[in-house]
Amino acid sequence: MSKSHADATDQNRSVGTVAIAWKGDHLALLDQRRLPASEEWLKYSDADGVATAIRQMVVRGAPAIGISAAYGAALEAQKLAATRSPDWPLVMSRAIETLAQSRPTAINLFWALDRVRQAMEASKDIADLADSLVKLAVRLHEEDVDANFAMADLALEAMDLEGPICVLTHCNTGALATGGYGTALGVIRRLNEEGLLERVYADETRPWLQGSRLTAWELERDGIPVTLNADSAAAWILSRRNVKWVIVGADRITANGDVANKIGTYGLAVLAKHHGVGFMVVAPASTVDLSLASGWDIPIEERDGIELKEVQGVAFASEQLETFNPVFDVTPAELIDVIVTEKGYARNPDSESVAKLV
Amino acid sequence: MSKSHADATDQNRSVGTVAIAWKGDHLALLDQRRLPASEEWLKYSDADGVATAIRQMVVRGAPAIGISAAYGAALEAQKLAATRSPDWPLVMSRAIETLAQSRPTAINLFWALDRVRQAMEASKDIADLADSLVKLAVRLHEEDVDANFAMADLALEAMDLEGPICVLTHCNTGALATGGYGTALGVIRRLNEEGLLERVYADETRPWLQGSRLTAWELERDGIPVTLNADSAAAWILSRRNVKWVIVGADRITANGDVANKIGTYGLAVLAKHHGVGFMVVAPASTVDLSLASGWDIPIEERDGIELKEVQGVAFASEQLETFNPVFDVTPAELIDVIVTEKGYARNPDSESVAKLV
Repeated sequence: MSKSHADATDQNRSVGTVAIAWKGDHLALLDQRRLPASEEWLKYSDADGVATAIRQMVVRGAPAIGISAAYGAALEAQKLAATRSPDWPLVMSRAIETLAQSRPTAINLFWALDRVRQAMEASKDIADLADSLVKLAVRLHEEDVDANFAMADLALEAMDLEGPICVLTHCNTGALATGGYGTALGVIRRLNEEGLLERVYADETRPWLQGSRLTAWELERDGIPVTLNADSAAAWILSRRNVKWVIVGADRITANGDVANKIGTYGLAVLAKHHGVGFMVVAPASTVDLSLASGWDIPIEERDGIELKEVQGVAFASEQLETFNPVFDVTPAELIDVIVTEKGYARNPDSESVAKLV
Repeated sequence: MSKSHADATDQNRSVGTVAIAWKGDHLALLDQRRLPASEEWLKYSDADGVATAIRQMVVRGAPAIGISAAYGAALEAQKLAATRSPDWPLVMSRAIETLAQSRPTAINLFWALDRVRQAMEASKDIADLADSLVKLAVRLHEEDVDANFAMADLALEAMDLEGPICVLTHCNTGALATGGYGTALGVIRRLNEEGLLERVYADETRPWLQGSRLTAWELERDGIPVTLNADSAAAWILSRRNVKWVIVGADRITANGDVANKIGTYGLAVLAKHHGVGFMVVAPASTVDLSLASGWDIPIEERDGIELKEVQGVAFASEQLETFNPVFDVTPAELIDVIVTEKGYARNPDSESVAKLV
C-alpha cells in the first residue's frame, strides 16, 4: 500500500500527512484532537478501540472514518482468529454494530461496513475472514487515495481555469480526513501542483476548529499558501477578494444531489450563489447514498454543547447555557455547481446525473 | 443619572448589567475580556487609560465606546483643572486625539469627541471645561439609555407581531455594549417584556466570542431564553427553526443606508434575504455618518491574527500562520429591511429615509 504512506507519490504527487497507518497487528492513528500542538500516535488492536477513536474524534473525516472502521473490523477478526473463538460470527456482528454506532452522518462508515459484512458471508472460517478483512481494509485505503487523485484531475477539468485563482474551503478534507491527498483539499493540492492556486482561504470551522488546527497545519506543512479566517468572514472574503470557487467535501450525498457536510457548508453555498462564485463538492462515490431521496432524510448528528463553551479545556461560557450544536447541515442540490467523484462530475446535479457518479 | 444604573428602571424596564460606572473622580469599567469567568471592575482616571481600555477591549460596543471616551475626556479635564496646568488646551487636544485613535470603525466615538471639542470651544477655562465635560458625559450616557428605550418601542412597532417569535442576533449589543438596555438586544428585551419572544439564537461571534461570553451571559442573567450556536450554524437555523427576524446593531451607517457592523453581519443579511427572514439594524442616530456616501468609504479595522489562534491564552493554531481578521464588514442597504434609530425607522433604507433618522 505504498500510495497511502506519507512519503509516497503517484504521478509525482505527495499524498500529504496521512493520519492512518496499518501496522500488521495494530492500527496507529494520529490523534487529531491534539493537533497541531502535539503529534501523538495512538495504537488500536480491536473494533471497540477503533469505534471509540471514531466517536471521540481521534480520527475524523468521512473517508478516514470508513477506512478506520474497516481496519477495526480486521483487527477484531485477527483477535478472534488468534483465540480460535467458536462464537466469532456473533462477536464479529456485534463489533460491526459497535463500529456502525460510532458516528451517524457519514455514509462512508456504513459503506465500508457493508463490505466487511460481504466478506464475512464469503469466508469459510475466522482465519480466512481475518485474512480477507486485512486485505479489504488495505484495499479500501489504497483505493481511497486513487479516488482522490482521480477526483482532483476531474475537478480541474470541470473548472477549466485560465490562470491562478483564490479558493475558499471549510473544515478539513485533506490527507488527515482521508486515506491521503484529500478530497476538496486534494483538488486544492492539484491546483497548487499545476500553478493554478493563488491562495486558499481556510474557514477556521467552529466548533471543532478543523480549519485552524488541521487544514492550516496540513497546508502550511506542504508549502501551500493558506490564510486562516473566522467562518463568519467568508461572506466578506467572497465579496472583496478574488475567490472563484468554494470547494468542500461531503459526508453524504443523496439521490437528488443534496449534500450533508460540516455545519456551515449550507450557508457557504448560499453565499457563493449570491456572489456568483462557483460551489464544488468533492467526495468519493462511496459518499453517494442512493437509498435516500433527499437531504431531508439524512440523520444529522448533534454533539455536546461543551464544544461551544470551551477550547482545550478552557471554558469561556456559562456551563448551564442552552446550545444548539449540529455537526452537519444539508446543502440542497440547486445551490451546487458541480459534484465530483472519482467516476466523473455532475454540473447542476440532479437525480439523473448523480446516478452516474456512483 | 439614575437610568444608567444597573438596578434602575424606566417604565418598569430593567436596563440590564451596565459595564460603565461614573464615580465622580474616576470611571469604573467592567472588564469585558474576563467575562463571564470573572467580574472585575477596572478604574480609570485619565484619557490615556480610557483610550487603552477601548483599544484593548476592556469596554466594547459602539455606543459604550462613545460614552467611555466622553468620560475619558472629562477625567483628563478634571486632572488638568486640579493641577491648573496653563497648557491645558494643548493637552486636551492631544487627549482627544488619543481617544480618537483607539478604534477606527465605530462612528459613535468620533461623534462623542466632536461634542467634547464643542464643549472645549465654549469653555472659558479648564475648571469650567471639566465641569462641562462631566455633565456632557453623564448626559450622553443617560441619553443613550433613553435612545435604547425609544428604539425598542419603534422596532416593535415596525415588526407589528401577532405572537411570539424566535430571533437570531450576532455579537453583543446589550447593556454591556451601550449605556444600558441595549440596541438590538434592547429590542429583544422589549420583545421578552411584551411576551413576544419565544427564544433568541445567539451567534457565538468569533473571534472574540461576544455572543457566548457576553450576550448569553447577559440574557441568562436576566432570564431571557437564549440558545448559543456556532456562527456557521446560522444558515441552518434560519432554514429549520422558526426565526422571523435577524436583529443586529451597527458601528456606522452611511448616507445611503449601508451598515458597518461586526464581521459576519453581512453574511447574515444575505442568508436572511435567502430565507425570507426579516433583517433589522438597531442603532442610535449618532451611528449615522452622513459624511460618507456608502459603505465602501468606511475604514474597516483589522485586528491581530492572534485572536484566531488562541482563546484565553490557549493556542490551537500555528503561530506563523497567515490570517485575515477583519473586525467589521459592510452590509449594503438593499439587504436591510429596517433600520431603527431613536428618531424613527426606515424600511428598505435609502438616502432619503436615512436622512430622516438623524
